[in-house]
Amino acid sequence: SIYLFGISISMISAILGRGSLCMKRTRIVGGKLLQRSPTEGTYAIHEATIVLCGAHIEAITTQPTTTPSEEEEIVDGRRKLYMPGLINTHGHAPMAILRGLQDDAPLHVWLQQHMWPAEARFTAKDVRAGAMLAIVEMMRTGTTTFLDMYDRMEIVAEAVAQTGMRACLSRGIIGLCSVEEQREKLAQAIQFVQQWHHGAQGRITTMIAPHAPYTCPPALLTQLIEASAQYDVPLHIHLSETAEEVAQNVATYGVRPVAHLMNLGCFARPTLVAHAVHVDEAEIAVFAQHSVAVSHNPRSNLKLGSGVAPVVAMQRAGVCVALGTDSAASNNNLDMFQEMRTAALLHKGVLCDPTVIPIHTALNMATVHGATALQLTQIGELAVGMKADMIALDLDAPHLQPTDALLSHLVYSASGSDVVDVWIDGKRVLNNRVCTTIDEEKVRYDAQIARQCVVG
Amino acid sequence: SIYLFGISISMISAILGRGSLCMKRTRIVGGKLLQRSPTEGTYAIHEATIVLCGAHIEAITTQPTTTPSEEEEIVDGRRKLYMPGLINTHGHAPMAILRGLQDDAPLHVWLQQHMWPAEARFTAKDVRAGAMLAIVEMMRTGTTTFLDMYDRMEIVAEAVAQTGMRACLSRGIIGLCSVEEQREKLAQAIQFVQQWHHGAQGRITTMIAPHAPYTCPPALLTQLIEASAQYDVPLHIHLSETAEEVAQNVATYGVRPVAHLMNLGCFARPTLVAHAVHVDEAEIAVFAQHSVAVSHNPRSNLKLGSGVAPVVAMQRAGVCVALGTDSAASNNNLDMFQEMRTAALLHKGVLCDPTVIPIHTALNMATVHGATALQLTQIGELAVGMKADMIALDLDAPHLQPTDALLSHLVYSASGSDVVDVWIDGKRVLNNRVCTTIDEEKVRYDAQIARQCVVG
Repeated sequence: SIYLFGISISMISAILGRGSLCMKRTRIVGGKLLQRSPTEGTYAIHEATIVLCGAHIEAITTQPTTTPSEEEEIVDGRRKLYMPGLINTHGHAPMAILRGLQDDAPLHVWLQQHMWPAEARFTAKDVRAGAMLAIVEMMRTGTTTFLDMYDRMEIVAEAVAQTGMRACLSRGIIGLCSVEEQREKLAQAIQFVQQWHHGAQGRITTMIAPHAPYTCPPALLTQLIEASAQYDVPLHIHLSETAEEVAQNVATYGVRPVAHLMNLGCFARPTLVAHAVHVDEAEIAVFAQHSVAVSHNPRSNLKLGSGVAPVVAMQRAGVCVALGTDSAASNNNLDMFQEMRTAALLHKGVLCDPTVIPIHTALNMATVHGATALQLTQIGELAVGMKADMIALDLDAPHLQPTDALLSHLVYSASGSDVVDVWIDGKRVLNNRVCTTIDEEKVRYDAQIARQCVVG
Repeated sequence: SIYLFGISISMISAILGRGSLCMKRTRIVGGKLLQRSPTEGTYAIHEATIVLCGAHIEAITTQPTTTPSEEEEIVDGRRKLYMPGLINTHGHAPMAILRGLQDDAPLHVWLQQHMWPAEARFTAKDVRAGAMLAIVEMMRTGTTTFLDMYDRMEIVAEAVAQTGMRACLSRGIIGLCSVEEQREKLAQAIQFVQQWHHGAQGRITTMIAPHAPYTCPPALLTQLIEASAQYDVPLHIHLSETAEEVAQNVATYGVRPVAHLMNLGCFARPTLVAHAVHVDEAEIAVFAQHSVAVSHNPRSNLKLGSGVAPVVAMQRAGVCVALGTDSAASNNNLDMFQEMRTAALLHKGVLCDPTVIPIHTALNMATVHGATALQLTQIGELAVGMKADMIALDLDAPHLQPTDALLSHLVYSASGSDVVDVWIDGKRVLNNRVCTTIDEEKVRYDAQIARQCVVG
């Protein structure tokens, strides 16, 4: 088929770019491969040999495999399905140590009485413990790239660098403080971009992240938008998560949050907004017109009682809608397979229409739309020249039988626990369900200690 | 605490009933135990020693364990959480071989163009293959009792008997056929009750199951209700799953489905209805008045675009709402942890209220309410004298860290894949994620063959 060996200019340059740097070659034989038609945006699964070389996919072929060279590592892919790693486009990794701290409470109680007091006690060690716990969980459940917004982001960046993860990181800024403190936070955000953009062998990119319109005064927002332009990185912001914040924005500024941000020049920059639960048709049109991407976090929105985002309307308007888990404090796991399934199911039920968010759309949301949302061109699908960010699922699980309808099973039955192997940037970071770059027992221990420290 | 050693008359009779039949004793030490306060209906987790004797729980103690006798099996429960097995109150096990056959289609297309033609080709072997696949999946994901409605139910019963599962089974009757055929199906349903009620060492009970008001003419419904009374078993029926069937009932019979069934005398019998998506306040009041139990199947309802059942309104009216997965053809897995989580999340989001279906309610829905819905008094919670239907979760998974908030994790983070050990009726049917009573490879193989036979 045409897309099997389809190769774009960017792919060729990627291949030429790494040239003879390919040190290690891995040949995966006998596995099933999830491949996407770039023209149709639909998926098919077929048996293929996959060759990884260095950080990239060197070849995908359905032909009988050639005799492998001696330096190649051969991986037995039988009874496994290979697919692109999932992309989690919104979260706060350090909050993983707050998982389950408070549930079933109104948002303001959850936030003000439980999250903020605990977060105020976070030390660098606690931030690191949370980041490591989130990374282990994401790796083990098939996420190969995650976006993060939090303070002390350099600690998260170090964890990403160490573990082999890929991430798009941002120092989240809450501007409910003095102008001096705002200035300091802005300086930190810029310093973070300067220090970490394209860091960790290129696995880290950065964004500028005002927390939300209701936590950042317009003057600060303007400064952050300017910083985004000056340092040429996208913007990331929470937007219209609850009906209350929309009403508050109207009361304070006379306009709804989307118009507010647009008036400040936000959407002249590449922007990824998280949630967008309470947006109307006109606001969706603004997103489409300005190529604003949306990170849809269905389980967090449900759990906090925020509502159901009009995802199908956004998609029909041409908006790029990706998926995110939000933090483990409001979800409460980071399994992107479950997030994808919830998205695929929820809107069918709420709209009473079983045809919306079909399998192919759900898979796109969890992969290529995530790459688009994060402005990353080399991940999100498995094709020659793309980054080798790949996961393998064990096909022996009862809930994946019969194996005729694997495309369906990926969306409607599989979970992160089916993931057995993970490669990121060509490196095998999960081998038969064991992290190769992380001492998982230490991560569990550190998370437990950190929880006791911040909650007592 | 008072409920730790709480014991009721029925429990005492259960203990006396089995008397010296206790052949084998299992002592689980060092584990965490999920226990329910019978007065409050709330849960707590604490360390305890659990002693199983024969099919029952003989002792639960927080005291230092006595020296075990030689005949006891000692199980190391450290880093594990013990809880009652989950109860799946609605499904069609043989349809597991149709998993993923057709998705994202309108209900009538899905049913008429895909399900029914495939089901028409089902042989006894296919029914058995599907039942075995469903049982393996349910056992491995922590379900210890399931309700099933299908034809050729004796094949499912044999699979239940063989595998050590517990089930409430019913020969589902679709009356869109001649009166002679209806009579034959009624005879089969009665024969099934006579043959299997209290079968498989008591692990099987039965119900009489008209498929739905729109597939059973009133005269047939009347006969089935009479059979339910005559043979003293409850009724199980699909009810008001879609808006269309409610409208059709009004058009055909002049009343909504709930009034229709009530007028026929249905609710004079113990009745469990599946779905109840489209029921109004008056109908909910009828359920409450007649102690009609509801099997809420949120993921199936979402996937088929049926809508969202008014579960919170039903609970506020005092209706017993349990959980079910429906078949793997419309869900598409049978993981009751995921079903419980979806229920707990969905209604918060749809009602924009994060306080509805809190943790304790969700756990009750998946356990004790399931037992009530199936009219089973000896399962659903772990207490002295109750049946030893118990599951153990591995607590080392990253998504269950930190382990301070395990109650929360059970509802909001855990999945069936965390289940490592399962006891049903005191027998260990899952040991470290391996079924002890089932050849899983054969089940996979048979399911694959069956799928090819029925779909081609």
